[in-house]
Amino acid sequence: MDMMEEARKMKLASPFVAASSLETRNRALEMVADALSSHKDEIFAANQEDLERAEAEGISPAVKKRLKFGQEKLDDVLAGIRQLVRLPDPVGKVQLKRELDDDLLLERVTCPIGVIGVIFEARPDAMVQISTLCIKSGNCAILKGGKETAGTNKVLFGLIYDAAVSAGMPKECLLQAQQHNEIDELLSCDRYVDLLIPRGSNAFVQYIMNHTKIPVMGHADGICHIYVDKAADQQMAIRILVDAKTQYTAACNAVETILIHRDIAKEFLPKLKKAFDEAGVRIRGTKEVTDAIGGETMAEDGFAKEYLDLVASVKMVGSLDEAIAHINRFGSHHTDAIVTQDQQAAERFMQLVDSAGVYQNCSTRFADGYRYGFGAEVGISTGKLHARGPVGLEGLVTYKYKLYGHGDIVGDYASGKRKFTHKDLS
Amino acid sequence: MDMMEEARKMKLASPFVAASSLETRNRALEMVADALSSHKDEIFAANQEDLERAEAEGISPAVKKRLKFGQEKLDDVLAGIRQLVRLPDPVGKVQLKRELDDDLLLERVTCPIGVIGVIFEARPDAMVQISTLCIKSGNCAILKGGKETAGTNKVLFGLIYDAAVSAGMPKECLLQAQQHNEIDELLSCDRYVDLLIPRGSNAFVQYIMNHTKIPVMGHADGICHIYVDKAADQQMAIRILVDAKTQYTAACNAVETILIHRDIAKEFLPKLKKAFDEAGVRIRGTKEVTDAIGGETMAEDGFAKEYLDLVASVKMVGSLDEAIAHINRFGSHHTDAIVTQDQQAAERFMQLVDSAGVYQNCSTRFADGYRYGFGAEVGISTGKLHARGPVGLEGLVTYKYKLYGHGDIVGDYASGKRKFTHKDLS
Repeated sequence: MDMMEEARKMKLASPFVAASSLETRNRALEMVADALSSHKDEIFAANQEDLERAEAEGISPAVKKRLKFGQEKLDDVLAGIRQLVRLPDPVGKVQLKRELDDDLLLERVTCPIGVIGVIFEARPDAMVQISTLCIKSGNCAILKGGKETAGTNKVLFGLIYDAAVSAGMPKECLLQAQQHNEIDELLSCDRYVDLLIPRGSNAFVQYIMNHTKIPVMGHADGICHIYVDKAADQQMAIRILVDAKTQYTAACNAVETILIHRDIAKEFLPKLKKAFDEAGVRIRGTKEVTDAIGGETMAEDGFAKEYLDLVASVKMVGSLDEAIAHINRFGSHHTDAIVTQDQQAAERFMQLVDSAGVYQNCSTRFADGYRYGFGAEVGISTGKLHARGPVGLEGLVTYKYKLYGHGDIVGDYASGKRKFTHKDLS
Repeated sequence: MDMMEEARKMKLASPFVAASSLETRNRALEMVADALSSHKDEIFAANQEDLERAEAEGISPAVKKRLKFGQEKLDDVLAGIRQLVRLPDPVGKVQLKRELDDDLLLERVTCPIGVIGVIFEARPDAMVQISTLCIKSGNCAILKGGKETAGTNKVLFGLIYDAAVSAGMPKECLLQAQQHNEIDELLSCDRYVDLLIPRGSNAFVQYIMNHTKIPVMGHADGICHIYVDKAADQQMAIRILVDAKTQYTAACNAVETILIHRDIAKEFLPKLKKAFDEAGVRIRGTKEVTDAIGGETMAEDGFAKEYLDLVASVKMVGSLDEAIAHINRFGSHHTDAIVTQDQQAAERFMQLVDSAGVYQNCSTRFADGYRYGFGAEVGISTGKLHARGPVGLEGLVTYKYKLYGHGDIVGDYASGKRKFTHKDLS
């Protein structure tokens, strides 16, 4: 495949994909759901082959669970598609309607971004979620999934593509990249691709960010913190910490560093150690921490580490503000939580911590498009421009300004002959 | 000045600047206005020195007009500051309020971006506009203005900074860079600077975009088109074309290429030539155009040129769709207009042209923050992420998700013990 040429054709077609009606886009989603249902045996067979090949290469049960696409995951993605059909149209929303003068009407209207490249990990459900989010939002998408589920992805993509085109979407709406070298070709298509969303390891995302001129949305690190305040409900803190560390260790929103107010540390640390021992979590603490409960001592500069494993960094702080400063310095601006019954402390934390998600008294694992009610997500952004946090439909649109005049010229305003009225209409 | 160290300190302080109250920010704006008024002699004297130096180096009357900062421009910026004070707070707006479950409340709240670097042309009024937009939006800003007005900028910045800090803004809120080499230092501060907004020549903006990892918002080219449809009011088209080409030739939103429907070209071209001759505008046409009205013949690949001068490219097209395809191919996605009385043609043009501004029957020169009613603008973006078109206060904020829980963990939802309610609150 000539990626540059395919991307060029997609870019040319993208205004027409953007102009497709909500009816067509929703019909495409419904036909995708039907196709996946009626061809499930074919999908499951391809997935079985992927699993067998992966097992022959030796994979952990956790990875196998991620690769597997059976009835349960099919039901999940079908439910997701149905939810997506019901969601309001993200395209064509009038965000601003303002008379600049009599008969000079300004409108700001949402529209698709255009051509989006998504490179994602070996998870067949991600292929379905990402492609259907792009269809609903009127974007063209170039999709490249992880090689471990290449067989499953090929079947899924074929079904999705055929259904979308049968429903009336232009044939350039979706494209699957299947070769690893096509990733580098994609990175050079900055004239034709408007946005890249890479998902995967820190090193992979960093590589993408450093090797393209295309704007990149996503996150490299997920160094999430939980700060246990002196006014914390300690039992609640333990419950939250165990969930945030162990419910899905490999997730970017799993907690990596635990900060504990020094006033309660002596009482709290043994409880934490007991709970983490039971959950199989290893503690790496500062000297002050290991002096109290033993374990491996870490250096101050180890706090920029994302374990993605049953390990956590633990440190004592003397104040709320010390916790905030630590998080802003070492964190990745992803999701950080405070456990406290002191509402003023919570508000200060949530105001001053500079992250996409700032939580009080709940697990960092809630940072997720599905849990936020977005239907699904194409990724989680730790950047501050455009979408921040879990990115759903709203993050896949931009806007354009439409100005309707009747021969209006700027010279008349510069000379003072006319004056702007700037009257907002409902 | 050690730019990296200054940027680091600014980044540390940025959450506190972001947390400053609307009252403080508005008081700062009022004190800035007072300081500029009461020190106007000092400002005008510095500007006089800048002008004399520039004249000694030989500048055109047009450039002199841009450099000059007298009573008229002072009145303009003071009016702008007063308008800014009256605008609603862009920070702390609740964009989404959703119960994920009983007692688990999600809010999406706007907040400042953080640390913004703005590099702008030699226009003293830009120094005032940009710094006051950053104050109002709670952002820290590093400001570097064009060297031709360095003396004026130094006085203006000193007054603005002292007023803002006296009003209670943290002392790290604003920083002025005065040396040209500090631009390159600023480009390397990707750990501390969240956004760069470069303004100036195409080559300068391209240089910035190619030499930094910091996200850049702005535009390099401003290749704006006006398409004169077969259903155009031809007299209206002439009036709009003359304004869009001559009202301020050096502006990015001035028209560069004129597309004319072939059905009316024979009738329209002589009228255009007459009007442009009177206005001193030179036509560079395709062979088909120069065959009809004479003048310089251009090659097809010359359409990617931004003249910023009294010159325009002129081409005939056979259809609305050919005009749209030309604009999407050669344009810079800035602002493009159609002149037509055919509403269906206008809607098709405005739907399919992939630009920040799509206009019907008015001059492209309206693409401007002040004219849109944003008070002022920090720049115009031709990118599709974050703000697009003229960037005012709204483009200087992002958002964060706040999640308020009561010990909630994801494990309870994964196990099916609890279900999300996803209920939007008013």
